[in-house]
Amino acid sequence: MDIALVILAAGKGTRMNSELPKVLHPIAHAPMLAHAMSAGAALDPVRTVVVAGHGADEVRAAVARIDERAEVVLQDEQHGTAHAVDMARATLEGFEGDIVVLFGDTPFLRPETLERMAAARQGSDLVVLGFEAADPGRYGRLVMDGDRLARIVEFKDATEAERALTFCNSGLMACDAATLFSLIAEVGNANASGEYYLTDVVALANARGLSVTAVTCDEAETLGINTRAELAAAEAAFQARARAELLETGVTMMAPETVYLALDTVIGRDAVIEPNVVFGPEVTVESGARIRAFSHLEGCHVSRGATVGPFARLRPGAELAEDVHIGNFVEIKNATIAEGAKVNHLSYIGDASVGEKSNIGAGTITCNYDGVFKHRTEIGANAFIGSDTLLVAPVRVGHNAMTATGTVVTKDIPDGAMAIGRTEQVNKPGFAVKMFEMLKARKAKQQKG
Amino acid sequence: MDIALVILAAGKGTRMNSELPKVLHPIAHAPMLAHAMSAGAALDPVRTVVVAGHGADEVRAAVARIDERAEVVLQDEQHGTAHAVDMARATLEGFEGDIVVLFGDTPFLRPETLERMAAARQGSDLVVLGFEAADPGRYGRLVMDGDRLARIVEFKDATEAERALTFCNSGLMACDAATLFSLIAEVGNANASGEYYLTDVVALANARGLSVTAVTCDEAETLGINTRAELAAAEAAFQARARAELLETGVTMMAPETVYLALDTVIGRDAVIEPNVVFGPEVTVESGARIRAFSHLEGCHVSRGATVGPFARLRPGAELAEDVHIGNFVEIKNATIAEGAKVNHLSYIGDASVGEKSNIGAGTITCNYDGVFKHRTEIGANAFIGSDTLLVAPVRVGHNAMTATGTVVTKDIPDGAMAIGRTEQVNKPGFAVKMFEMLKARKAKQQKG
Amino acid sequence: MDIALVILAAGKGTRMNSELPKVLHPIAHAPMLAHAMSAGAALDPVRTVVVAGHGADEVRAAVARIDERAEVVLQDEQHGTAHAVDMARATLEGFEGDIVVLFGDTPFLRPETLERMAAARQGSDLVVLGFEAADPGRYGRLVMDGDRLARIVEFKDATEAERALTFCNSGLMACDAATLFSLIAEVGNANASGEYYLTDVVALANARGLSVTAVTCDEAETLGINTRAELAAAEAAFQARARAELLETGVTMMAPETVYLALDTVIGRDAVIEPNVVFGPEVTVESGARIRAFSHLEGCHVSRGATVGPFARLRPGAELAEDVHIGNFVEIKNATIAEGAKVNHLSYIGDASVGEKSNIGAGTITCNYDGVFKHRTEIGANAFIGSDTLLVAPVRVGHNAMTATGTVVTKDIPDGAMAIGRTEQVNKPGFAVKMFEMLKARKAKQQKG
Repeated sequence: MDIALVILAAGKGTRMNSELPKVLHPIAHAPMLAHAMSAGAALDPVRTVVVAGHGADEVRAAVARIDERAEVVLQDEQHGTAHAVDMARATLEGFEGDIVVLFGDTPFLRPETLERMAAARQGSDLVVLGFEAADPGRYGRLVMDGDRLARIVEFKDATEAERALTFCNSGLMACDAATLFSLIAEVGNANASGEYYLTDVVALANARGLSVTAVTCDEAETLGINTRAELAAAEAAFQARARAELLETGVTMMAPETVYLALDTVIGRDAVIEPNVVFGPEVTVESGARIRAFSHLEGCHVSRGATVGPFARLRPGAELAEDVHIGNFVEIKNATIAEGAKVNHLSYIGDASVGEKSNIGAGTITCNYDGVFKHRTEIGANAFIGSDTLLVAPVRVGHNAMTATGTVVTKDIPDGAMAIGRTEQVNKPGFAVKMFEMLKARKAKQQKG
Repeated sequence: MDIALVILAAGKGTRMNSELPKVLHPIAHAPMLAHAMSAGAALDPVRTVVVAGHGADEVRAAVARIDERAEVVLQDEQHGTAHAVDMARATLEGFEGDIVVLFGDTPFLRPETLERMAAARQGSDLVVLGFEAADPGRYGRLVMDGDRLARIVEFKDATEAERALTFCNSGLMACDAATLFSLIAEVGNANASGEYYLTDVVALANARGLSVTAVTCDEAETLGINTRAELAAAEAAFQARARAELLETGVTMMAPETVYLALDTVIGRDAVIEPNVVFGPEVTVESGARIRAFSHLEGCHVSRGATVGPFARLRPGAELAEDVHIGNFVEIKNATIAEGAKVNHLSYIGDASVGEKSNIGAGTITCNYDGVFKHRTEIGANAFIGSDTLLVAPVRVGHNAMTATGTVVTKDIPDGAMAIGRTEQVNKPGFAVKMFEMLKARKAKQQKG
Repeated sequence: MDIALVILAAGKGTRMNSELPKVLHPIAHAPMLAHAMSAGAALDPVRTVVVAGHGADEVRAAVARIDERAEVVLQDEQHGTAHAVDMARATLEGFEGDIVVLFGDTPFLRPETLERMAAARQGSDLVVLGFEAADPGRYGRLVMDGDRLARIVEFKDATEAERALTFCNSGLMACDAATLFSLIAEVGNANASGEYYLTDVVALANARGLSVTAVTCDEAETLGINTRAELAAAEAAFQARARAELLETGVTMMAPETVYLALDTVIGRDAVIEPNVVFGPEVTVESGARIRAFSHLEGCHVSRGATVGPFARLRPGAELAEDVHIGNFVEIKNATIAEGAKVNHLSYIGDASVGEKSNIGAGTITCNYDGVFKHRTEIGANAFIGSDTLLVAPVRVGHNAMTATGTVVTKDIPDGAMAIGRTEQVNKPGFAVKMFEMLKARKAKQQKG
């Protein structure tokens, strides 16, 4: 059966106190909407429709980045969840299959849970997702009659006996598209808030004699994010889980609680991650590499046996081959560093390639930007770049070539050659002493005057 | 009614195991005494008298920094809390109004609590601050008779029934000055420790037929700091509260538990603070700015749309205008960076101004110190400072000016001009190969020899 | 009585999911085996025998680093704990005294516990270490008959009454060497796993009429490490204890939870350690020094009154004298910095000595490596090293000497002299404007074309 996801993402998220639409606030560098979409992807949906409202332009742009095949429909005014799903009606005109309704601010849903909902659809017309609440509070209660979901009772309308129930409504459901839209067409808004509630389809379906059931998931999966404190807690939960998984797969972390991971961080067995390391998106670290303390990595690859940091920054496009050493106060951007090469201190290597076993001295800078264009620097194998060499790109340093300390390299250096550009040092005897005497005398005079 | 604060700050704090007087140990970069004085400021006191003893000179200097109108009196020898308050008698000679007695090592007191004490003085001659203790232990108990505070019973003197009381004595009180000093004059030291206890004034006041009452506060407000572990816990409590408040006001923090704030840190809505950021005193960050991971800020201002870090250090006097970019391994001190300017890599900009949209290349250094004097560097708008430019201050770089990579700038550069000071690169063919052969041969010889 | 330790360290540690033998995984930078050996050292053993198996070569190398007098014997195939101890028989041939059996993966054992075991040997032939388990689960139970250890019952063989016991077996024991080996010779492997269990010696000793007793320790001491999550928890426990001890001894830490310590870190009273500081092995910090945020220290010494960081890295051999200032983005390696000297910004000082009160400008680099050899830089007292000075070692800068900004120093500088090597700055009027126009025109053309 074909499946279409309808993901509700129109809410303002007032309690986030933010200009950014709520569903775009990130967890592990990915908007919470992406987490919901990623869970939904387990169903292999043929269509994904995101219902946007507040900040719709930003949501549209984000959806395009997450899944270019996903569609966005607009809910100009928010009149309740049934109204929100109804916004997808025109877009899904002619779609034959199931609709699964998800929420863009419920990022913890597990793919397995959705798979169980899909499976339950084999025997029921409408499947609702519920959870056993530790403290059911004011949640709507799912009233079961055997396997049949008899009805959903809102807390305020519930009898004492119903309030004692702990099986609660998550709001998610799965249903044949035609059935769902026909049920939604009957939902009214004769209630205190004047809104159209999606939960009302349960009563309508039962009234039609359709079979309705409920599937259970862990309460934690259904948690929505409403405040920044909840967002921070969600991030902490993600990080704790991701760190535990890395430990399980054999990554060495002395202080996992200080390592921040992205959704897509990949780290090999017996790699060592020291305290205080931040991984942005798209980082892979191979087995046996070592990331030292206070390092920051984004969009880069670190191969087996390489060492990075402490105090290193790898930016997008940094590709470190095996046994590369990147040391302290070093920034690597859009550059490949070949096997065994070293950039140990205080350097900026951008838009460059460094050959095998080359040694880049302290204070080396690739001058890759002329104010308008960016240019590339190429350094061959076994090169020795002296300290404080300035490589004015575009420029090529040959294999086995060398630069003298402090040289400004503006022309290519042939293989095996040494480039030097340096003003000879002149010592002026007694001059330092004289200068300090003069400066101190001036200061004394100022202090008097 | 005029109010005078008397703040007891003479204790040694033996359990802190420190040369620093206990009340000067900091929480959120401010001495705990400053926290107590800050709470007291809610009463808008006309006089503030700090009673110092151990480390009195250091306490005096600190008080002057916190509130220059505050006075310090000396308690040479410590003979109890009543004796301590009595040290303020001479200084407050002629003062007509209320005295509120606070402790310098009780930093959590809330201004509202003091306001309630002041309000309670309307109907009572003496007001004592008490708290409901979760575990009353050996605290003194407040024995109430309706609204009247009948007496304070020390634990060791308490009956079984009195020990069952959970309303305990914080030690703080408010009273008319003349009355308080006349009560203190009657306090004796006929007890095991031979000390004059301030709590004894309650019994004396009741004996005189004065009206005495108690006001309740949260137990956490009355916690005193006695050890470094308690100090660290106090700091953690401060940080947790400050982070929660920032989240509430709409600041984005992926890992708030790694962000360290000062008492006066101000951060705007939708500003993003990445993991591992330390704020020293006097920092303001506007809405929509981004402070990246591993950044350290003190005494600086970051405007809307600006980006700082990762690995950036902003020191006092750093003023970043809108959309400024400060990148990695960059230090900014006492410098204004105008709108849209960029200092992206490995630079030190001190005692300087950088004009709008100027680009400062990697490795740029303002040489602001000649060993005796500090000098300023001025860079105009739309300037392009090539990598590794050394700006020997005092010096001015014009608008739309440029420096070539590696230039030592010792003279002003006119608007639109380019400054260049560079030794031409010479390539010596084959020289690198020869040099390495020589070095390796020498090494081989050494290893043989 | 002479004591020999036999430390079992042959296990593979499958659940660690690592190439590294389990006992070599570090806690506080020292392999867990070193922690066990360190606890054992309290007994002042005349012999230490480590039984290695999986990764024996690596274990042998590690043992040599930890205690060069320790011996390693090989257990090629693992046939149980009795078999493991038996591997030490040949090596201990002729040894007269006690054997204490420890485990290499039980790093929390306290020296006092071992001393109590040794003391208990005065009155008993065989002493077993037990612990009161909060949740005894499937541990073997110690069945006591007064002070006598009647037998050890494995959980699966235990009666209901025995399962109710909470006194459990840690596996450690102490016994006269000859007795222990003769008991082990009788241990059989007629059990489900076909292994020789050391615990069986208890029954055998009782059968011989020997006196057997048990000593109790805290359950936490007997915890073995089996997974990386347990290793991380052990590290966290170590760090928490080490931080608490430092607070107790008078070290100031604003956020102790962000300070990472090594087993041998020594920090003096009233030293200040700011948030996010990582200590590798062999660091001493004297009283009153300040280590600022984001600093990384290994193998170094920081004297009284010195300040380090933020963003500083001290590598092995960095020796800072009193009142030295090391600032941001500075790396010091194998260098002595004399009293009052300053290295404040963006510098690399390696294989060097810096004299008293000298000032090292921003961007200074000691060029200590020529690609084959490392050379030393010596800087005298009261020297002023201008920004971006490159010191090509071996080289000596005299007392009271000075270098001009950007000088490449290749020759010694006499006392009081100034070294300068600089190309004069030339301003080319209008050139910057022309160049930008040209670049922008080219870009415009590209965008059209």
